Amino acid sequence: MIQRDEQTATVADREDAGAFVRKPVAFDTRITSDGSSPWPVEPERYRLIVARACPWANRAVIVRRLLGLEPVLSLGITGPLHDERSWRFHLDPGDRDPVLDIEYLREAYLRADPDFTGGVTVPAVVEVASRKLVTNGFQQLTLDLSTQWTAYHRPGAPNLYPEHLRAEIDEVNAEVYRNVNNGVYRCGFATSQDAYERAYHALFGTLDRLSERFATRRYLVGDTITEADVRLWVTLVRFDAVYHGHFKCNRQKLTEMPVLWAYARDLFQTPGFGDTIDFGQIKQHYYGVHRQLNPSGVVPVGPDPTNRLEPHGRAELGGRPFGDGTPPGPPPPEERVPELAPA
Amino acid sequence: MIQRDEQTATVADREDAGAFVRKPVAFDTRITSDGSSPWPVEPERYRLIVARACPWANRAVIVRRLLGLEPVLSLGITGPLHDERSWRFHLDPGDRDPVLDIEYLREAYLRADPDFTGGVTVPAVVEVASRKLVTNGFQQLTLDLSTQWTAYHRPGAPNLYPEHLRAEIDEVNAEVYRNVNNGVYRCGFATSQDAYERAYHALFGTLDRLSERFATRRYLVGDTITEADVRLWVTLVRFDAVYHGHFKCNRQKLTEMPVLWAYARDLFQTPGFGDTIDFGQIKQHYYGVHRQLNPSGVVPVGPDPTNRLEPHGRAELGGRPFGDGTPPGPPPPEERVPELAPA
Repeated sequence: MIQRDEQTATVADREDAGAFVRKPVAFDTRITSDGSSPWPVEPERYRLIVARACPWANRAVIVRRLLGLEPVLSLGITGPLHDERSWRFHLDPGDRDPVLDIEYLREAYLRADPDFTGGVTVPAVVEVASRKLVTNGFQQLTLDLSTQWTAYHRPGAPNLYPEHLRAEIDEVNAEVYRNVNNGVYRCGFATSQDAYERAYHALFGTLDRLSERFATRRYLVGDTITEADVRLWVTLVRFDAVYHGHFKCNRQKLTEMPVLWAYARDLFQTPGFGDTIDFGQIKQHYYGVHRQLNPSGVVPVGPDPTNRLEPHGRAELGGRPFGDGTPPGPPPPEERVPELAPA
Repeated sequence: MIQRDEQTATVADREDAGAFVRKPVAFDTRITSDGSSPWPVEPERYRLIVARACPWANRAVIVRRLLGLEPVLSLGITGPLHDERSWRFHLDPGDRDPVLDIEYLREAYLRADPDFTGGVTVPAVVEVASRKLVTNGFQQLTLDLSTQWTAYHRPGAPNLYPEHLRAEIDEVNAEVYRNVNNGVYRCGFATSQDAYERAYHALFGTLDRLSERFATRRYLVGDTITEADVRLWVTLVRFDAVYHGHFKCNRQKLTEMPVLWAYARDLFQTPGFGDTIDFGQIKQHYYGVHRQLNPSGVVPVGPDPTNRLEPHGRAELGGRPFGDGTPPGPPPPEERVPELAPA
């Protein structure tokens, strides 16, 4: 079985009509604080494994940062490239995660299920002591960081999933997932013209609706940053670097959609968002791993990402980024992304 | 032998270093008016075969239009797609050119050389009576239309290759060919990161120099449209539709380089230029034929080309588009490209 993408997009995932269909995650376990799961919330028991390249993992990196969970949930970072043996710790000394002492993330999956042959994806939470995978359930993971790990949130942590807004957040997230987060993959991995065009029009239809929504409000739901912003933003921030060209999402660049572009810059410049992004790794991953789309593996030089630091002018729309809370401090030194350099 | 591109870019064309090297044309014959060639200029003797998609052919289409050679040199138009059997007349009734009565352009090449196994390219000039290829020498062809076919130029035809500017035109053309016309192919067909990056930086270096040049002058050489403008423009007009994404020329879109973009719009709106362009066929060709770059063959929906009709404001720089001449009239009905529709 050839693994094609961090969320296991394989040739077999595609319907007859040429549409890309994402596989369900393999280990949809939850870590909870109420005894409802065999895996309780516990400081320093787990390690969050991510790749800077991956938008699904990026959600968890941002939420962990915003909530200040760094001291209780450590972070392992795989490199941007992987082969059929899965995500690999090729950025670490000796190509091994220093805490789990594994080279390939698949090793943690196999400790959880020796017969596992499915897709190895990030984000993944691994129990440190047993080096076993606990969960790769990317949809629930960030919600649980917000709602189950509250005892370990930093002082001033924002409420990213407030009860009175959950119905609206869930509804918005559903459309954003279908047409934007997964929608860009449905464009890029379509193998028929029809399937591609359906995904393209759905994507830009939702982006147009979001542009209207953001014309008068600073954030997606309510007047503070929520889970909904995190989920939308991880796709927007990758748009021009990879989705526009590599995935053929080319009606416009993000920089040509002025409202969405200002919204994306606003969050890029908010602590906990832009400081999680490594454009070099993002491009290396998409162009280097999806050889079915880019057989040469050549990585484009452009576009220049430094324009994400330009003024966004969104503060005048009101809104309180962290509500009654405060921004997170800088990332721990070992988690810092190199400064953006011009392309 | 698998033909990969209209100018015969094959795997074998690439150097060890992964750089794309264009093959010389196979039939570099000239048609002249001074007896220096066995093929004399003669009305209605030859047929010019092009594809709307191909930038090298586009040069010849534009120059023929500007000079008003339609009544003496007829035009055959292949479809945008071809296979290893070469460019095919799949837009014509019965998939055959109505004058030459051939399905594949290769048939005319084989009549000229029964042992020919090389690349079949457009533009190609075919003798109608014998249905034999005369020349596919795309570099000389447009110069000869300007200098050898003068007896048949329309009244008011511009001088696209004036003697006193030839040295400068030739010099500009050499850099534009190397870094822009062929440079985009060197980006797109590079199979190594290094070869790609060299081509990318050479391309944008020349585009930056051209932007400076065009900031104060309307046309590339002198103050009227010349052969140099025709050659540069056929690449610029395709930039966002295919080179930006498909060939990874993605520092900016043309629409993000304001001076070049205004220059390109100016010519797009000049009779004889924009009326030769079919963006649908351009995208179908590049994305459909270069399966080594785009295995699925899916053709992107974007970008929307209608913005090429926006005001360009370049007239205030002075310059006289046709010098002492006049613009050409509209194309003959059978040569009209469908109106641009929004993407």
